[in-house]
Amino acid sequence: MSKQALEYLQSNRDALLAKLNDFLSIPSVSTDSVHKQDVEKAAQFVSDYLTDIGFEKVEVQKTKGHPLVYGEWLGAGDNAPTVLLYGHYDVQPADPLELWDSEPFQPEIRDGRLYARGSSDDKGQVFMHLAVFEAYMKTEGKLPINVKVCIEGEEEIGSENLYEILQAKQEQFAADFAVISDSGMVAKGQPTVLYGLKGFTGLEFTVKGPSSDLHSGIYGGAVKNPLMALAHILTSMKNEDEVVQVAGFYDGIDELSDDERKLIAEVPGEDFVQSTGIPEVTPEKGYTAKEHTMARPTLEVNGMFGGYQGEGTKTIIPSYATAKLTSRLVPGQEPEKVQQLLVEHIKKHTPKGVTVDIKKEPLSAKAYKVDPNHPLVEKAAQSLTKAFGKETVYVRMGGSIPVVEWIDAIYKMPIVLLGFGTPEDRLHSPNESFPIENFDKGMETLVYYWQNVQQG
Amino acid sequence: MSKQALEYLQSNRDALLAKLNDFLSIPSVSTDSVHKQDVEKAAQFVSDYLTDIGFEKVEVQKTKGHPLVYGEWLGAGDNAPTVLLYGHYDVQPADPLELWDSEPFQPEIRDGRLYARGSSDDKGQVFMHLAVFEAYMKTEGKLPINVKVCIEGEEEIGSENLYEILQAKQEQFAADFAVISDSGMVAKGQPTVLYGLKGFTGLEFTVKGPSSDLHSGIYGGAVKNPLMALAHILTSMKNEDEVVQVAGFYDGIDELSDDERKLIAEVPGEDFVQSTGIPEVTPEKGYTAKEHTMARPTLEVNGMFGGYQGEGTKTIIPSYATAKLTSRLVPGQEPEKVQQLLVEHIKKHTPKGVTVDIKKEPLSAKAYKVDPNHPLVEKAAQSLTKAFGKETVYVRMGGSIPVVEWIDAIYKMPIVLLGFGTPEDRLHSPNESFPIENFDKGMETLVYYWQNVQQG
Repeated sequence: MSKQALEYLQSNRDALLAKLNDFLSIPSVSTDSVHKQDVEKAAQFVSDYLTDIGFEKVEVQKTKGHPLVYGEWLGAGDNAPTVLLYGHYDVQPADPLELWDSEPFQPEIRDGRLYARGSSDDKGQVFMHLAVFEAYMKTEGKLPINVKVCIEGEEEIGSENLYEILQAKQEQFAADFAVISDSGMVAKGQPTVLYGLKGFTGLEFTVKGPSSDLHSGIYGGAVKNPLMALAHILTSMKNEDEVVQVAGFYDGIDELSDDERKLIAEVPGEDFVQSTGIPEVTPEKGYTAKEHTMARPTLEVNGMFGGYQGEGTKTIIPSYATAKLTSRLVPGQEPEKVQQLLVEHIKKHTPKGVTVDIKKEPLSAKAYKVDPNHPLVEKAAQSLTKAFGKETVYVRMGGSIPVVEWIDAIYKMPIVLLGFGTPEDRLHSPNESFPIENFDKGMETLVYYWQNVQQG
Repeated sequence: MSKQALEYLQSNRDALLAKLNDFLSIPSVSTDSVHKQDVEKAAQFVSDYLTDIGFEKVEVQKTKGHPLVYGEWLGAGDNAPTVLLYGHYDVQPADPLELWDSEPFQPEIRDGRLYARGSSDDKGQVFMHLAVFEAYMKTEGKLPINVKVCIEGEEEIGSENLYEILQAKQEQFAADFAVISDSGMVAKGQPTVLYGLKGFTGLEFTVKGPSSDLHSGIYGGAVKNPLMALAHILTSMKNEDEVVQVAGFYDGIDELSDDERKLIAEVPGEDFVQSTGIPEVTPEKGYTAKEHTMARPTLEVNGMFGGYQGEGTKTIIPSYATAKLTSRLVPGQEPEKVQQLLVEHIKKHTPKGVTVDIKKEPLSAKAYKVDPNHPLVEKAAQSLTKAFGKETVYVRMGGSIPVVEWIDAIYKMPIVLLGFGTPEDRLHSPNESFPIENFDKGMETLVYYWQNVQQG
């Protein structure tokens, strides 16, 4: 059955690329109100496509912000599994425009890559799903399984309304599992299943000293320096072995199993020294850099400021100093609990002579992890291996995708993260692109995958 | 003899205030090239005044920047002492203008204070000296001692050319001692002799990590965070008892004597908690806040920055982090040596995974201290006590006045710091002012002082 769909994709390749071209040409930049109509146009594109293929109950659902496109095809019957497919049709802004080698919304193929804003994140990957559904419907008149499609227009602005929608539409969106193609492979040509994401929590704290900046000659020796106090607090939070010193931070975390260490070791890793220009990696003592980035929690200072920042010298004791912290979490850690532990640690370690103001970051996410041996994950790996001709690797990622946690929390269903991007795609940056080869092999993977899932 | 001079000052008070008004009306802002001609006009004012009084060899000496005014009166003869009087006729900019209650260059007397830019720093205090010389010359036809006057126009821009001039003019400027009135009393009505100033040295260092900002989810755990590394370095430099941990930092410093602790204890101290809004003072362990600010070296972070500083969260590991440090020095510490100790400490405490770039601040100054029992200092104290009707206190100050160190280093003569400002003068700020009472009592002090010095 999958053979015909594959043939369809091959023989209609030019038409599909032309159609993708139309999709990518719509500047659906969700953060910029100038593009409000473009965002709606992109939603309409998805909606029209679904209707054309033969999906039912297709609608552009209004939200408080940009619309969400829903459509379903449930013709596989009650005995076939139902998948909820999530993706997004909105994109990041293209600025700075002058750094693009071709127009961001005039797709161009160069050296085997399709250059356009959204080619990888996420319009290109959404389109691949739609094209595969088209291939099945045009050749078989049906899909191997039941499908519910949910493509939002606010992912690049924090999915502001999605959580509420997911809660409200539990009946409509109900499914046996979810698939999300909004991530990447560890290297081009290296099929990858992502089976875990980190959560996160964060806060900002400001150490307050004198009510205004003071002359360091006159007040130095009487007044605690807020910058130095800030440094002391930060230093108390993590030792030089990169072990977090916040009491309770690691509570509830499972130690890495030998199996998982082996899985991680098998992933062809990025050479961090080469790709980032650092002198050497500095993972938590007892772990490799790959283990720490993928599977251990982190605590990072993302920004810090206070006092004089201009050229030369200004001999002041500044009035205040601020640091922004985020922590990436692994399964077993509760975001709110970790945030509270950080708050308590900061308060406890604030030296005398200053006070501290703490602002909790309202957004947070729990870590997500699916059993890498789950049949739906194994089938994804088998499909990838077959399409790409190479053994699939299993990775966890240090990043966070809030929608994953939300689907997990509300729907309690397994989520298969099947991403076809590559590390060279330059997401959110000028010259975003996507390898044409992954367009072909990605669609091939999806054809195999739905088939595999159907066969149970 | 001083009686006549005092009477002259009293009976000509209005004329003198009117003349001071003319001087303060010249916007001699040295940092702003728009005011170049005003700066020259102020120099000419000083020069004309000296000529009118009867000074000789009066000249507006050109420099690479703004001119220096020189004049001398050596009629007291070879047996009388010669003083070198230093001051400056340039002022800070008046911005922000909207915060002034009256025009900065249209002097106005309100509530016993003369409001104008430069009223305290330093045109007002320079003028007092000139008026006292006038009083002596008009009544006696001579001064009690020989006087060389050196009034520069670049103090507010770091006395850029003064060091070179002081070196070049050693013969012309030679004297037995120097007097500088460019400082203040510890409180209005509390006559004060300043017998010590701190020196300073400084540097800026940048902790460098990855070649660009990185995604904290993907790289957290592999890459050392430069902000955290910076915090570790700073924390290693000073403990929570405010004791500097840099090896050799305190070498060569004399422990505070009981006599000096007593002198310091007698000074009516600023209530640091009240004036700065801090919860409590935090001096070096074993010292009071007054002792530390006046007589112990300090190490302060003046500014610090790196990473994201906007609103909310940006989950990056920043590429670099920078801190600016200055240290205030006491006698026994060599600025260049301390600077080098700081450099070595930073290098030694830079954690692995990052590198560090250090920029030494080129300006530095040694501490200055004169024996508080020196007869020229005692005479100053006696004169102050007589004029203000209150026992004079002796203080050391945490600030630095580079010219003091330069005169000390090049001329090796005692320097008497006889300042009449008050803590409420708002130097460098909007609404700078000077108490009219100190104008009168300050001139009275100077009349007594020259007399006292003459009597040997």
